[in-house]
Parts: sequence; structure tokens; C-alpha cells
Amino acid sequence: MAPRTPKLLVPIDLKKKPWEQKLPLHNRWHPEIPPVAGVKTGEIFRVEMVDATGGAIKDDNSASDIKHLDLSTVHYLSGPIRVVDEEGIAAKPGDILAVEICNLGPLPGDEWGFTAIFDRENGGGFLTDHFPCATKAIWYFEGIYASSTHIPGFVTYGVRFPGITHPGIIGTAPSMELLNIWNEREGDLEENGLKSYKLCEVLHSRPLANLPSTKGCLLRKIPEGTLEWEKIANEAARTIPGRENGGNCDIKNLSIGSKIYLPVFVEGANFSTGDMHFSQGDGEVSLCGAIEMSGFLELKCEIIRGGMKEYLTPMGPTPLHVNPIFEIGPMEPRFSEWLVFEGISVDESGRQHYLDASVAYKRVVLNAIDYLSKFGYSKEQVYLLLSCCPCEGRISGIVDAPNAVATLAIPTAIFDQDIRPKANKVPVGPRVVRNPDIPRCSYDGNLPITKNPGATG
Amino acid sequence: MAPRTPKLLVPIDLKKKPWEQKLPLHNRWHPEIPPVAGVKTGEIFRVEMVDATGGAIKDDNSASDIKHLDLSTVHYLSGPIRVVDEEGIAAKPGDILAVEICNLGPLPGDEWGFTAIFDRENGGGFLTDHFPCATKAIWYFEGIYASSTHIPGFVTYGVRFPGITHPGIIGTAPSMELLNIWNEREGDLEENGLKSYKLCEVLHSRPLANLPSTKGCLLRKIPEGTLEWEKIANEAARTIPGRENGGNCDIKNLSIGSKIYLPVFVEGANFSTGDMHFSQGDGEVSLCGAIEMSGFLELKCEIIRGGMKEYLTPMGPTPLHVNPIFEIGPMEPRFSEWLVFEGISVDESGRQHYLDASVAYKRVVLNAIDYLSKFGYSKEQVYLLLSCCPCEGRISGIVDAPNAVATLAIPTAIFDQDIRPKANKVPVGPRVVRNPDIPRCSYDGNLPITKNPGATG
Amino acid sequence: MAPRTPKLLVPIDLKKKPWEQKLPLHNRWHPEIPPVAGVKTGEIFRVEMVDATGGAIKDDNSASDIKHLDLSTVHYLSGPIRVVDEEGIAAKPGDILAVEICNLGPLPGDEWGFTAIFDRENGGGFLTDHFPCATKAIWYFEGIYASSTHIPGFVTYGVRFPGITHPGIIGTAPSMELLNIWNEREGDLEENGLKSYKLCEVLHSRPLANLPSTKGCLLRKIPEGTLEWEKIANEAARTIPGRENGGNCDIKNLSIGSKIYLPVFVEGANFSTGDMHFSQGDGEVSLCGAIEMSGFLELKCEIIRGGMKEYLTPMGPTPLHVNPIFEIGPMEPRFSEWLVFEGISVDESGRQHYLDASVAYKRVVLNAIDYLSKFGYSKEQVYLLLSCCPCEGRISGIVDAPNAVATLAIPTAIFDQDIRPKANKVPVGPRVVRNPDIPRCSYDGNLPITKNPGATG
Amino acid sequence: MAPRTPKLLVPIDLKKKPWEQKLPLHNRWHPEIPPVAGVKTGEIFRVEMVDATGGAIKDDNSASDIKHLDLSTVHYLSGPIRVVDEEGIAAKPGDILAVEICNLGPLPGDEWGFTAIFDRENGGGFLTDHFPCATKAIWYFEGIYASSTHIPGFVTYGVRFPGITHPGIIGTAPSMELLNIWNEREGDLEENGLKSYKLCEVLHSRPLANLPSTKGCLLRKIPEGTLEWEKIANEAARTIPGRENGGNCDIKNLSIGSKIYLPVFVEGANFSTGDMHFSQGDGEVSLCGAIEMSGFLELKCEIIRGGMKEYLTPMGPTPLHVNPIFEIGPMEPRFSEWLVFEGISVDESGRQHYLDASVAYKRVVLNAIDYLSKFGYSKEQVYLLLSCCPCEGRISGIVDAPNAVATLAIPTAIFDQDIRPKANKVPVGPRVVRNPDIPRCSYDGNLPITKNPGATG
Repeated sequence: MAPRTPKLLVPIDLKKKPWEQKLPLHNRWHPEIPPVAGVKTGEIFRVEMVDATGGAIKDDNSASDIKHLDLSTVHYLSGPIRVVDEEGIAAKPGDILAVEICNLGPLPGDEWGFTAIFDRENGGGFLTDHFPCATKAIWYFEGIYASSTHIPGFVTYGVRFPGITHPGIIGTAPSMELLNIWNEREGDLEENGLKSYKLCEVLHSRPLANLPSTKGCLLRKIPEGTLEWEKIANEAARTIPGRENGGNCDIKNLSIGSKIYLPVFVEGANFSTGDMHFSQGDGEVSLCGAIEMSGFLELKCEIIRGGMKEYLTPMGPTPLHVNPIFEIGPMEPRFSEWLVFEGISVDESGRQHYLDASVAYKRVVLNAIDYLSKFGYSKEQVYLLLSCCPCEGRISGIVDAPNAVATLAIPTAIFDQDIRPKANKVPVGPRVVRNPDIPRCSYDGNLPITKNPGATG
Repeated sequence: MAPRTPKLLVPIDLKKKPWEQKLPLHNRWHPEIPPVAGVKTGEIFRVEMVDATGGAIKDDNSASDIKHLDLSTVHYLSGPIRVVDEEGIAAKPGDILAVEICNLGPLPGDEWGFTAIFDRENGGGFLTDHFPCATKAIWYFEGIYASSTHIPGFVTYGVRFPGITHPGIIGTAPSMELLNIWNEREGDLEENGLKSYKLCEVLHSRPLANLPSTKGCLLRKIPEGTLEWEKIANEAARTIPGRENGGNCDIKNLSIGSKIYLPVFVEGANFSTGDMHFSQGDGEVSLCGAIEMSGFLELKCEIIRGGMKEYLTPMGPTPLHVNPIFEIGPMEPRFSEWLVFEGISVDESGRQHYLDASVAYKRVVLNAIDYLSKFGYSKEQVYLLLSCCPCEGRISGIVDAPNAVATLAIPTAIFDQDIRPKANKVPVGPRVVRNPDIPRCSYDGNLPITKNPGATG
Repeated sequence: MAPRTPKLLVPIDLKKKPWEQKLPLHNRWHPEIPPVAGVKTGEIFRVEMVDATGGAIKDDNSASDIKHLDLSTVHYLSGPIRVVDEEGIAAKPGDILAVEICNLGPLPGDEWGFTAIFDRENGGGFLTDHFPCATKAIWYFEGIYASSTHIPGFVTYGVRFPGITHPGIIGTAPSMELLNIWNEREGDLEENGLKSYKLCEVLHSRPLANLPSTKGCLLRKIPEGTLEWEKIANEAARTIPGRENGGNCDIKNLSIGSKIYLPVFVEGANFSTGDMHFSQGDGEVSLCGAIEMSGFLELKCEIIRGGMKEYLTPMGPTPLHVNPIFEIGPMEPRFSEWLVFEGISVDESGRQHYLDASVAYKRVVLNAIDYLSKFGYSKEQVYLLLSCCPCEGRISGIVDAPNAVATLAIPTAIFDQDIRPKANKVPVGPRVVRNPDIPRCSYDGNLPITKNPGATG
Repeated sequence: MAPRTPKLLVPIDLKKKPWEQKLPLHNRWHPEIPPVAGVKTGEIFRVEMVDATGGAIKDDNSASDIKHLDLSTVHYLSGPIRVVDEEGIAAKPGDILAVEICNLGPLPGDEWGFTAIFDRENGGGFLTDHFPCATKAIWYFEGIYASSTHIPGFVTYGVRFPGITHPGIIGTAPSMELLNIWNEREGDLEENGLKSYKLCEVLHSRPLANLPSTKGCLLRKIPEGTLEWEKIANEAARTIPGRENGGNCDIKNLSIGSKIYLPVFVEGANFSTGDMHFSQGDGEVSLCGAIEMSGFLELKCEIIRGGMKEYLTPMGPTPLHVNPIFEIGPMEPRFSEWLVFEGISVDESGRQHYLDASVAYKRVVLNAIDYLSKFGYSKEQVYLLLSCCPCEGRISGIVDAPNAVATLAIPTAIFDQDIRPKANKVPVGPRVVRNPDIPRCSYDGNLPITKNPGATG
């Protein structure tokens, strides 16, 4: 029996663009994207990946790359990978594909990442009405730790924390039937959002859904412009939201030793992965909010035959309305002290919402940003930090009408100062300035920005 | 210096009703409810409390007490307690009151609790359209562990878990100004919910808010029916939702060693506490979803003078729009293995919602209920279990339009069988039957119950 | 089914001496000490206990009670308790008695404890040649936390830590056969220690073993001086060391939720418990080194019939040469940061010992004491602290001749200052003096005290 | 500021012998071994290393390589590395060198390791009188997990656990003065062990110390046989034991994110490292007891000027009698359940020893081996397992004469069966046989093997 050296299935050359790679990548979900490679259950294999933007964001002190990022191209994924069992029989629709994450990390030579706030006209983020400007922070890695010159410290190194590294995206290829369901329901939202869904107008400045578009579409080696490409590009789902196939789940603890149980919709399962995060906070609030990086995964697959029927109850009109299951690995940083903020479903204008966890979560994130900004950080710095540090966002109460209660727990050890409230607050000492200017572009959009009495932007 | 024996400030006689106690309780928030006792900062004191219902629910095998529970009376609180500093100067509006939980537990002689689903016509719960029937489970405590004869096991004891015991409610008295804000905004929701808030009609079968009502109102020793009582009862806020003063926060980790930083709105702070939970899952989904019990707290207070201005930024039109902060204690059960479920903001009818964390959370809870019901439990049993076991409900993604992603992580160690998906599922063994019938009342209400293809009730 | 209210089996009146209690205590191991009570498997019962010295040590600022403590009386135990199964059949020799700790804590009204260094002529401790003087520290409890006015702080409260409360002693009654084995082997050590065991002379100032003695002996209600008392007192084993029956194991993590698997040597098992510790460091180095207190246990028993043969292999000449097994409970403080000291088996005179873990452990404790004394504490204060705080003492290497390596890991969170080595050490600030004088008696013994170049006393 | 890509300081070619490497290795401690490279404080650099035996042990099913291993060659170390500060000034004697472990792991392509029992005539181990035969187990790694075909399972994979990977050896070069101290004290032990140290004769079959020897000595590129080589080889200390310079500390938690504070004895510090362990149990009881492997470290250095005087109190006749300090990293596997065994200082013949932690530790390891062998494993398998799995060996009591109490805590999650004692033991199921024969050589030595009544070999 040989050692378990992972077989390199998808290599990445960091000097090349996603479409120039030896095994070109893709950035859409569609059953007809041809597999990049095949793998047997039990084998350990290595998949390398570019960052979600395919290298568009640079390690520098300007946010203009963020401001002008072409969002139609994200996320570049490695795959699809076709899975067969030890007898060579492919995974089948109705099976469950269990994928274990044996190892993962940044690509050697590329030990850095970025966290960004998108411009309000270009995707924005959870708090875009408070923070409309494109902003970014660069993070450098020292093994398990990340720190940023853009969030400088007071006593020593500034903010520094161990990352819980994970792939933001892992998912199986949808069947055409499932793809149609997605396109129909998301199209309906996009079309009828203001009318039937009664969403408030200000939101509609941003797209309600991300529908298929040929613009920016990469389908591995299928030549752009061909009939095949046109057909697939017009049907293929964007990778932005998480869906029944897994996809952009952004589960911050899906790290080393974890196992993902994915439903299989097409022969071979054809799973893809990408959007590597060095670390992320629950909710990934600034949208481009994790520490985005290139990276690698070492994986092992198992097929649970007939597992969908056995384990996954559809919660919707068809047997396809299911969701993956995850098993969290045993290797995580121990944090002993947490400061916890709370938000209720009353918005910044003082208006009461009915058990709305999204409003409560917005409130708690705003509360935490304001609190921490009293310790010498700018609000943008804290917004970026809460997007990417290992903070836990919980739904604490969802039943006590009319207030949903959300909480956000932040490990105090990530700061180089004591951030707890106290009777005699120690004044913030002389800052260890390393880079006082956080990269930021001004906002020149057309949308009016909320100016609530409590607004913080 | 003497040992730190806690001074008994609020005693409870379990044989008496809340209004018969030596120091009668209250079940409303109002600045004019007279303090039950005073305490100095630094002192350790003991506050005993009845369960949220004041003893209305019995340790038996019938759910009829749940079905007919008079919700106008919950939650019975111990307090208000007036706090002064070591010089005898009272806490003032604008201060922060820091309350440390030194110890807590069930009341001796009363080591049991209950978890319930309310009837759909009487409050319901998060999944009331799936589970409209009044149901309950009785839990017995063995030190830190709880187990229930109503959720029997297969191998040994059934489900058994260590509780993270905490008070569901702790809060300071609101000022009249804050009380008016509450009544106005909640009244507006109640009145204009369907119209302005565009909520779907089916929800309106349940009250949108819980407005002041004289019915069921208990105001310590102020005699019912007097002018003073009438005035206060008509103004006083219900204790159902968490608000700016803390209140019903239901933060499941607010256990021994924790510290709560509460804003002070009235002279003396006048804080009250109650609604003791032996254990609760994030969200407390079945509404009466924690393991509700009587209990005691041993507390110590500190005043941070001027702390509101220093630490709490208002997020709304007035300086009162703030929220408490919490510090979580160091003593918690270690769980090494978690199974994590996922839900997206597509509802059971297959309809797409826009970044709606409440819908995503509903989906993840339904997914988990269905999954676990494959291991020999009824769906009601799992619904009750997920309401009260130490499961973690997270907002994993809130930005990737159109899907919010919620996750629910369940520690696998609470089961006496292996609940992970596997290629060769072991058949569920002969059940160790102790009480196969979970107490349940039939639903005879008027509201149509959702009958989605994926519905599970 | 009734709630699990523990039945009070052994009550303690703190105003009375151990022999005046309603159910008098005992301080020896012998099969003929009559049971104090009986209990059925599955029942939850409460056992209260005095502290190990039976109240001889006072909450004051003098160490003279420590200096003159009559060690012939420790430890006062509650029990023996006879265990029968649900059919009323007693535990039998060869069975295993599994005892679960459901709950535990200090006795209400007595929330304090002490840690002491014995005088070198009166028992001494692990470092008696460095610290020959009787010393003590009083600790006060605030729920899970302990702090001491005798180990004052610099910034806030001084040293403060959550206790992992546990009984120092829990054990079953020995059979006469086992008792004879004990008395023979310990007598042989006492008699032939210097000769056959080649122990160095200086040690022999302290007794090598603690043999049976009628002095100080308490045997529950058997009247002192009677024939029965004389016989038993002359045979009964002292409670000082841990042995095959469990006894004084001092396992610092044996806290709430733990389970002890004890071998049964006599009909009914007849187990006793006592020597409650609010907290202890591994090794309990100062001998009276835990935070000693009165307290209570709530327990539940199970009998594993024939378990000794099934699970416990004798490691010695008879089937009685076995040891208990323990299962650690899930509820412990999380500490995220540890500073770890190291010691090797080279003693303070520079002499090399061969793979001697005791020497290595002495070295590591001395190293830690010296290090921490650089942060403003006296060495006695640190010695007391390391005896009782939740520090972990490990045998890291026991094979790499000639050095055994021992390590001592100390959670940094227990200090109110940063105790890590750093390039620019912050000077120790003005002390928050509360009681600068640690209670201490001078040493007026006859034994020469080691004066090694590296000695630290 | 560039990303933190580690600079490769010491590369390893796995196809070459230690002395054939581009930068040859060394296996002794001596101040005159020339540095292999230099590094600045703050830089991140990568050091690769062969396994302790330099590749002598093979991934096969025979233990003959273990039986005939030439122990004079271990451990091959990478280094010495000379450290200077940012101004280029070297670390000086009296400074502290702080080394942070940023990352570590097996070498790519070499994801396996071995655990072995040495033949009694060739080093033996902690339990050599019970287990005299050379034995080995091969482990394969799947990311953080290790499993062995030589310790097969019953239900699924057999024993499998996440490793806490660490370097067994890290240390600074000794000065000649310190080297002389070592050679003198260890020579004295070797010479006078039986006489002055009163060690029992049977032990003396194994060397009491490992004194300098030219045999097997490798001193980087200094040619063997030259005068320089002869001089150094005759003086240089073996790497077997841990000492004042750190060295073979075998601290099992010294993993990613940890920091080592090493005393500096020579200009430049000249630190070396090696003996990588995928995982180790406290004590590394079988001597070659960790999972030994090749590997890499990514490190960062800091110099604390004058740190020895500031932080390290000598505990011996000279200022050199110090020990390193360690800070444990935050990233470790969470284990929630531990089974704990206990041993007292009574040996297998029933003889009482006086507070001897080494004897107690031997007893607890024997107890654990026997217990676990009841679950279908052979005793050799368990002995190997306890040497390398993340079990914790504690000194629980060291003061209660005459018994030292040692405990060994084993995380139950590493087994694929429930190993707790229970009333109705489930019979061990059909084994998932993968390799029933553990590689083992017969013992043909001359030494009588202990045959105690309780002996287990």
C-alpha cells in the first residue's frame, strides 16, 4: 500500500489567466460543461484554484480594481470532476457524493489575499447604503495567521487571527431539470420583485437575482462564440448564490477534516470547487468579504448509493428541492473569550419589522461596527474585518413577535488591545502606524444614500 | 473579608402563584413598577424565579395545559432590582449596568422542565403551518444533563445532553420615552402590517406584535383594578420580544460566568430577570422552545458611568436606539463533532425570496427535522429537540443574491446512535421504549394549513 | 415519573465537628466501617462533606493553624455508602461500581477555601526544601470563579480563574485481603526505605509512608477506645495516598458530568468520598495544594456485574492489583492560550538523574515559580497558585536517556497582566494592593535546608 | 510589502542520504558545527528535514530494519541556522531566540510515517521488559488524519486520528561551557549509575546515558576522519535527551502557531531542528514512539535581547542551567470525550515505591494497554498506539506519600468502536481485516525478561 500522496488533478499556473490554464476553468453551473478530470472513490487528489476573480485584484494600495471589477466573470471554478466508484461505475443521479477535505491552503508563492467592499453601483454589499464606496484591504499570511497593513495595530501587530480556511464554493453539476427550476424562480423574482415580492424600491438599484448572461461566461475549453457555447451560456446558472447543488455556501467552518454530502444530479456527479477563503465571518457581510485567495484542496470522495432518497427530504415541489449536509472537522482555533453584540428587527429609521432576521442581522453588524470604531479603527476597517474574521453570526430568536434577535460574537483575542467595555477605559495608545490609508475610491453613483439619524456611513 | 455567600434578594415559594409570593412578581416592562429590592455594586445576590408561565404547565403526559395556556400572563419576572454604587449613588440614565452571572441553576426540588409547541391559534411557532398542534415534552435533569421520556432512545437513554443554562430574559426598566417609542412602532406594525409592511396574509392569523393589554397583567404589589394599575397596565410593554433594554434576548450561551452590559434608562437601572432555560437551541424555534424551568441566578453588578455614550452608538432616530452587549463565559460543554444542515431562501412552495434570512432559517430547520426523523423520531419530537438542544443557528451567507444561506449545526454526541449519513446505514435497533406517546392535542382551528408538496406536518 | 430531586443521604452541619455530625464521618479505609446509608442504582443522591481537615483551617490572615495542623485526622470522608441494584441485590466483589457526578459545588453559606504549604516538619510538600515555612492563602468564590486577597493583582482583581471543582477522594472500601497488601508493602517501604529502596537521607525527615495509627482515627459512630475501635484503628489504612480502591486520586478534571469506574472489594461496594477541591493544578504540588473546601456531590450509581474481570487487568501478584478508570465530563473552561514550562531530570545541584519524572517535575515547577515571580508575585504566592490553578502537568518524554522531560502548562488568562516573554517588557504597574502580606509562619525546624546555587527559597 | 512566501533555507532531496544532501545535515550538538544558512528576524523561512533515522526505516511489512537500526546516527537535524536582527547584528549569548512555527507538515510525496518498538538489546523503550521485540506500524496520512493498516479496525477504518504535528527536536547550539557540563554530568551517571545512583541492575542492560561517540557522527560538510571532525565528534553531545538548549523535548502540542523561547549560548544562536512527528502521545512511550516522518517547518524568528537574565532563572550551579519556554498555538483538534486510566507508584511485582512518578507512569501505561487489548487489539498494537496518538499523560498527584498518581487520558473518538466500560459489553464484531500481521521480529537477546505475576508481555 503506497503513501497517500495526492494526485494533482487540476494544476494552476498563477501567471496565466483562467482561460489560459492548461486545464481551463469555468464560471457557470451547467450539466454540459465537460469534466476536467475523473477520480475514483478513495483516491486522494489535489485541486488547485485561482481566486474568485481570477487574479483581477492586485496586492497594492488602490481600490480602483475593486471599483471596476467585472462581476460577470466570478467565480472561476476548478472542475467539473467526474467521480466513479472502485469498480469504475459512475456516481448516478440520486446518489450522495461525500467529499472529505483532507488538506487545504494558499498556493505556494501566493500567500496573500484581499477583502473588499464593492461600489454601490457594482454589487454593493449587505451595508451598501452605509458604505457605498469601493474599498479594499490586503492580508498577508504567516502560516495560519493573517494580518493586514490596512488595519494597523496599536500595541503590536494590529489585528491578527488564525484563519479557518475553506472553499467558498463546492457543488455538483445541476441537471437540466434543476437548472430550469433555478432560472424560472430567479427570473420570476427579477421580473416581479417589486410587484409580487413587495420589496422596497431602494433595493432594486442592485439586481435582485443574477440571471444567466453570456457576458463574461467561461466554459472551460468550449470556444466562445460557438453555437455550443451560446446555448450553454444562455442557460447556465451564475455561481453567485448557494443552491440545491451546494455552490456558494460560504460556510466558514468547512475547513480541514470536514466532509460535504452533496446530492448528485448528473452521471459522474461532476463537482466543481473554487472561491477559496483564508478566513470568513458568518454572513460574509461586505459581499467580497472573506479573505479571497488562490489555493489548493486535497480531497477524497465516497459515493453513497441512493443516498438522496435515504437522507435528503425534498422541501419543495420536486424531489430536487434538497440541500447538502456538512460535517465539520475537528481542527479549529480555540477562542476562549467572545464579545457578543445584539440586533433586533427594528431598522435604522426606527421602523419595526416583523420577525425579520435579515434586518436584525443588519442591525447587529452596524452595532458591532460602531462599537469597535471607538477603539481607533475607521468604520470601513471594521466592516472589512467583520466580513473576514472568524466571528459567529447567530439567529438567537426568531419567534418572539415582532422582534427577531440576531447576535454577532467576536473573539476578543484577534485584537492587540482589550476591547471589552470597562469602567475606566484605557485611552487608545499611540498607533503602530504601518499604513494609515485604507485603499478607497469615492462613490460617484446616482443612487441616493440613506441618511437616517442613526446612519453611520 | 467574608466569604461571598450570595444574599437572597428575591425568594420563590414554588407552592405559591406568582402574585402570592412574599415579593410578588411582574410580567410587564414599565418605569413605574416599584423595585423589589436594592443592591450595591460588588455584592453577590441571589434572585429566584418561577418559570415563564408561573407554574401553569405540569409534569404530566397531556398537552392540554399547553393548548389552553393564557399567553397574556407570560413572562413572570423577578425584580425590578435597583442598583447603587458603593457610595450609595444610584445608576443613572446614560450609565451601563454590567451584570455578571456568578451561578445559576434549577430551583432545588424542581429539577425538571418542559418544551412545547403552541397551538396555531394560540401563538404557534416558527413552523406553525407545519406543526399546528399543541405538543409538549417533559425533561428531567441529572445535574448538567437533561433527558426526556417523551423523546425515547434506541440504545440507551435516548437523547441526553448537557444544558447551557441561562436566563431567557434580563433587562432594565425602560423610560417613558423609550416605552412610547416601543408602543408607537409596534402599534404601527400591528395596524398597518398587511398594508404598509406587505406581509402575506396567512401570517396575520397570528398577532404581528404583542401590544399592551390589561388582561393578565401583574405589576408586583400594585392592586389590580386600581387607577395606578390601570394606567401602568395600559402603557406597559409586553415581555415577549427582546428590545433596547435587553429583555427576551434568548441568547443560549448566556450562562455561568457571562456578563451583560445593559443600558440604563431610569434611575437605579431597575433590572428584572426571568424565563430561565435549562437549555435552548439558537432561535428557540418552537417558541416555547427552550427547556423552560424555574431557577435561580447569583449575580454581581457593576456600574459604568456614562457608558452608553462611551460604548453604545444609537442606531435609530434617538439616543435610546441601542442594544446591550454580552460577554460569554468560559464554561461550556465541549462538542467535537457537528452535523450541519443548510437552508436557502427558497420556500417550501419553491418560491424564491430575496436574501431573506428568516426564510432560509425556516428551510434549514425543516431540512434538519426531516433528516433526523429518518432515525426513528417523529417530526414533532425533532422539532421540540431542535428548539431546546444546544444547536447553533448561523447566518452563513446574506449577500449572494438572491439566496440567503442559513446553517444549523447539531452536536452529534447528544444522540445514542450515529446520525451521520453513511454508505451502509445501520437499521434503527429495537427502541428502548419508555414512553412512546408524545403528549399532543389535535388542532381544531380555523386556519388552513399549508399543503405544499414538500410540506412535512 | 418524578423529577430528579437528589435525596440527601449525608447531611453536614457546618457548625459541628466531624464526630458531632448527625451521621458521623470517618477518616480511614477499612471493610468494617459500617455504612452510613444505602442507595439503589439509578437514584440520584446528595452527599455533603466537610473539608479535608474538618474545619481546622480558618478564614483569617494567620498561618498558625496550618503550622500546627494535626495531620493524623485528615481526610474526613462522607460514607461509606452501600449500593444495591434495582432488585435490591448488593454490589459484589468483582463488580465495577460506576459513579456519575451529576452536580457538585461548595456548601451554601461556605463559599471559600484555602491553599496551604505545610511546615517542613509537618508533612512539607513537593518543594519543602525550598519552601519550609507554613503558609496559606484564602480564596473566595464568586460562582465559578475564585480569587484571593493573598495573591493581589496589578490591574484589576489579581489572579482569578474558573474552578474545575472535583472531589479529591472517592473510593470503595478495601477487603481485608487488600488492606493487608497495603499495610505490608507500605510498612516495608517505611522500614526499609533508606536501605533497600536507596532513597536519599534528606527525604527521610518526612515519613516515607503513612501507616495505620490510632491517633486521630475517627470511625463514624464506633466509640473511640472500644475493642472494636482499637482493632479497626490499628488495621485501617490512612487516606493520604491513592490506591487500588481509588481514594485520594486528586484528578483535577474529575468534575461535573464525570464518571468513575471503581473496583468493588466488599459486598455493597461501601464507597466514601470527601476532600472537595474547588480547583487544583496537576500534581497538587504544595500537598495541601488544591483550594480545599467543604462541599456537596450529587451522584448516581450503576453496577457493572463482573466488571473487574471484564475490564480491569491486575498489574501485580494478585487479582486485586487494579486501578479505577475515569471518564471526564464535557463541561470545562475553555482556555485558548497556554504558557508552557519545561523541566528535565537534572536536579538543582546540577546532578543528572536517570529518566526520573519526579525530578523533572520538580524542576519544571521550580522553573515556573521563578519565571512568574518576575511579574510581581512572591515565590510562595506562585507556589500556592500553581498548586491550585487549572495548570496541566505532563510527562512529555520518559524514554530519551538520561533525561525525563516534564512540562507544566499554565493558562495565561488567569492573570490580569500579560505574562508572556516579550522584547519590550512592560514594567509591572502599581499594584492594586488588597492584602500585601501573605500569611506565613517562620520555620523553626531542625532539618538543614538545601542551599544549592540555584536554590530559590 | 510582498506576500509572506517562505524562503527555502534548507531543502531536502528525499532520494538522497543525509550526508548527500546539497546542504548536508548533522546529528550532534556542538558549537563548532558551521551554520547551514543565516536568517533575519521577521523573515519567514522554510526548513525541510529527513525523518530522525535519515530514511533507514521503510514503508513495508517487516520490522527487521527496526531491529537492526544503528542508533548512533539519530537524529539527523537540519541546521544550524544563524539568526541576526534587522540591523544585521547576531543573536548573542544571554539573548532569547523566539521561534514561531507558522506552518508545518509532511514533505510532499512522502505522506507516511512509522512508529516502532526497539529491540530490548537496541535501546528498548519504556516498557522494554514487557515488550522486548522489535515491532513497527506504518501510518498513512490523509491530510490531518493518520491511519495504519497494522492497527486494523472493526467497523470502518480502524483507529484514525488527527495529528498534532510538531518537531520533536528544536534547539540552539550549546557553548563549550555548557557542553562540558553535559558531558561531565552524563558521564558521571554512566560511570557511577549502579554505585552512586543506586539504580537497579536490570536497567543497566541499556545505556544509562548516551555519551559522545564518533561512531555514526555526521557534522555537515566537515569531512569524516579529519582532525577537526575527530575533535568535534569526540566532544559533541548526542541528540537523544532534551537539555538546557531545548533539543529533543518531544512536546506533543508544539504545533502550528506555537512559539518557542530558546536560550542563546553562542553568537548567532545557531539553532537546528528535526525529528518531525506527525503525532505523538505524551511520553512517547515506545521510544521510537511518535509517528516519525520527514517534513517541513515554516518559521519566523525574533530576538529578545538580554532575555535570559530577564526571564530564565538558572536552576543549578551556573547561569546556564535554564530551560526553554513554550507557547502553545491555538489550532488543535477538539476532543470532547476522554477515557482516563490511572497508575500508582506500586510496580508490577507489587512493590511500593516512594512518590516515583516514573513508576506510576509505567503502571498507567500498562493499565491502559491491558484495558484496550480487550477490544480486539494485540498488546503491541496498543503500545504503539499509545506512543503516537494524542493521549495526555499527567502527573495527577506527586505529594501523597507513598503513592505518586499518574493518569493517561485517551480521546475515545480515535476508535471505531465504543471503548467505554459498560454493563452489557457489545461483542467485538467481525474485523475489517486489512493486514492482520503486525511486523515483528523475535527477541533473541541475552537479558532475562521480567516475569512478574502481573506481567503482560
